[in-house]
Amino acid sequence: MLTIKRLSLADARILIEGARKKAEDIGVPMCIAVTDESGQLIAFERMDGGKITSTIIAQDKAYTAAGAKRTTESYGIASQPGSAAYGINTAIGGRLTIVGGGLPVIVDGDVVGGIGLSSGTPAQDTECAQAGIEHFLRSVATDPA
Amino acid sequence: MLTIKRLSLADARILIEGARKKAEDIGVPMCIAVTDESGQLIAFERMDGGKITSTIIAQDKAYTAAGAKRTTESYGIASQPGSAAYGINTAIGGRLTIVGGGLPVIVDGDVVGGIGLSSGTPAQDTECAQAGIEHFLRSVATDPA
Amino acid sequence: MLTIKRLSLADARILIEGARKKAEDIGVPMCIAVTDESGQLIAFERMDGGKITSTIIAQDKAYTAAGAKRTTESYGIASQPGSAAYGINTAIGGRLTIVGGGLPVIVDGDVVGGIGLSSGTPAQDTECAQAGIEHFLRSVATDPA
Amino acid sequence: MLTIKRLSLADARILIEGARKKAEDIGVPMCIAVTDESGQLIAFERMDGGKITSTIIAQDKAYTAAGAKRTTESYGIASQPGSAAYGINTAIGGRLTIVGGGLPVIVDGDVVGGIGLSSGTPAQDTECAQAGIEHFLRSVATDPA
Repeated sequence: MLTIKRLSLADARILIEGARKKAEDIGVPMCIAVTDESGQLIAFERMDGGKITSTIIAQDKAYTAAGAKRTTESYGIASQPGSAAYGINTAIGGRLTIVGGGLPVIVDGDVVGGIGLSSGTPAQDTECAQAGIEHFLRSVATDPA
Repeated sequence: MLTIKRLSLADARILIEGARKKAEDIGVPMCIAVTDESGQLIAFERMDGGKITSTIIAQDKAYTAAGAKRTTESYGIASQPGSAAYGINTAIGGRLTIVGGGLPVIVDGDVVGGIGLSSGTPAQDTECAQAGIEHFLRSVATDPA
Repeated sequence: MLTIKRLSLADARILIEGARKKAEDIGVPMCIAVTDESGQLIAFERMDGGKITSTIIAQDKAYTAAGAKRTTESYGIASQPGSAAYGINTAIGGRLTIVGGGLPVIVDGDVVGGIGLSSGTPAQDTECAQAGIEHFLRSVATDPA
Repeated sequence: MLTIKRLSLADARILIEGARKKAEDIGVPMCIAVTDESGQLIAFERMDGGKITSTIIAQDKAYTAAGAKRTTESYGIASQPGSAAYGINTAIGGRLTIVGGGLPVIVDGDVVGGIGLSSGTPAQDTECAQAGIEHFLRSVATDPA
């Protein structure tokens, strides 16, 4: 039997809170999704003005980052024409996402979930996802439990 | 030109809060989805222990209730063998959901969104969805704005 | 953070072994799938002569049983015309399976995975899935670890 | 009437065994899928720690290699921008996979199945798939039957 660590709903809310604050700072209303380590949705918020298409894309970025244990941005690099993972973006019915904005959430070396942002540029999406993770890791570090 | 009334993210959180409280009362961890009047996801929460399959089903219940402007339970009745809507549950790739737990959110006669619950019995799912709506309508009534 | 128990590959093989032995006993070549507690595939075997359609159905039965934490057979009962879950079988693109043969694998009260069989009658599929679980639980009970 | 040669379940297990040993050697937990000559799944194993996304991708690589009678890596080359098969990766709902790691299993000039690996780099996936085939072909050569 394996023992797996997984984000709780309380954890997911902290991740979203951190990402949302950064999105407010940069003035871009975002769709924000958090999945567990298996890529299954735990929580989602579309800020007022977030893009409709991003409701799906944010979820698929979080799914990809958690399920493949890497950033979606890294897939974008690895799948350029002529590169080894070229064409990977159509995998899993197109859910495998290679556009920046999806990050695995890693605690003590284990992937415990994923966060995906969409509505800004990929760089903005990544920046906000990263802010969510940093906010979460700070809360874990200060948690007396 | 049309003017559409639509749930905000703040509204969606209130709907989820009301549904979650009822779910805690009855002791069933739920997946809770809130969509806008077009059936597009605004917010989602999977309570710790909510079912994996329900992450999709809750969203599709909310989508159906908002998009079709009726409860998913009413579709279950209307699509029994021999009834007029028989077979409607395969529509839209199976997203059109006829199991109870999806309700349109109606304000002043207008559908402004949908709420879908899944993980309990359909009756429990509906009860919690209804609790979310009642919690939301109370907050609207007391809002000085 | 949550801590989750999950079947290992070694566990999945034991489940398949037990199911296969029963399938050989009753003379029905089966497709046998084992998923983790999130419904994601760990191991699969199609016995020589197993049905092509069952390669998918066995996986979806295991997915449903693990993800919804109940037998697929129980969904068949709950979704008869006039019953509350009528029409649930088209959910999740039709992956939610209501035909017998899918069972959750439960250890110490926690769903740690799912097993799905297909190629026989639903009763035969269920019988073999149950045999797999019993074989696995015996091995857990005698494991000195 | 045609007579088709096809991998048995026993053959599929040998293919997986060879691939898994190589995966253990290089220290990458893999998802390993073996299909028959029609691309239909015979056996699958996710080594502990294999990626969730790879549960699907490994199957689709094996499907593609068996069904199209060529390596998935060769499709990657043939579908570069400006090449004749450009865009083929969206075929069959995205199941046609052009990333390395899927190989046809060929015996006496006939494609009798396919093997697909996923979780490492495409080069690692291909290396392990090849190891599986070599392990299998050695077992065929020494089989007194």
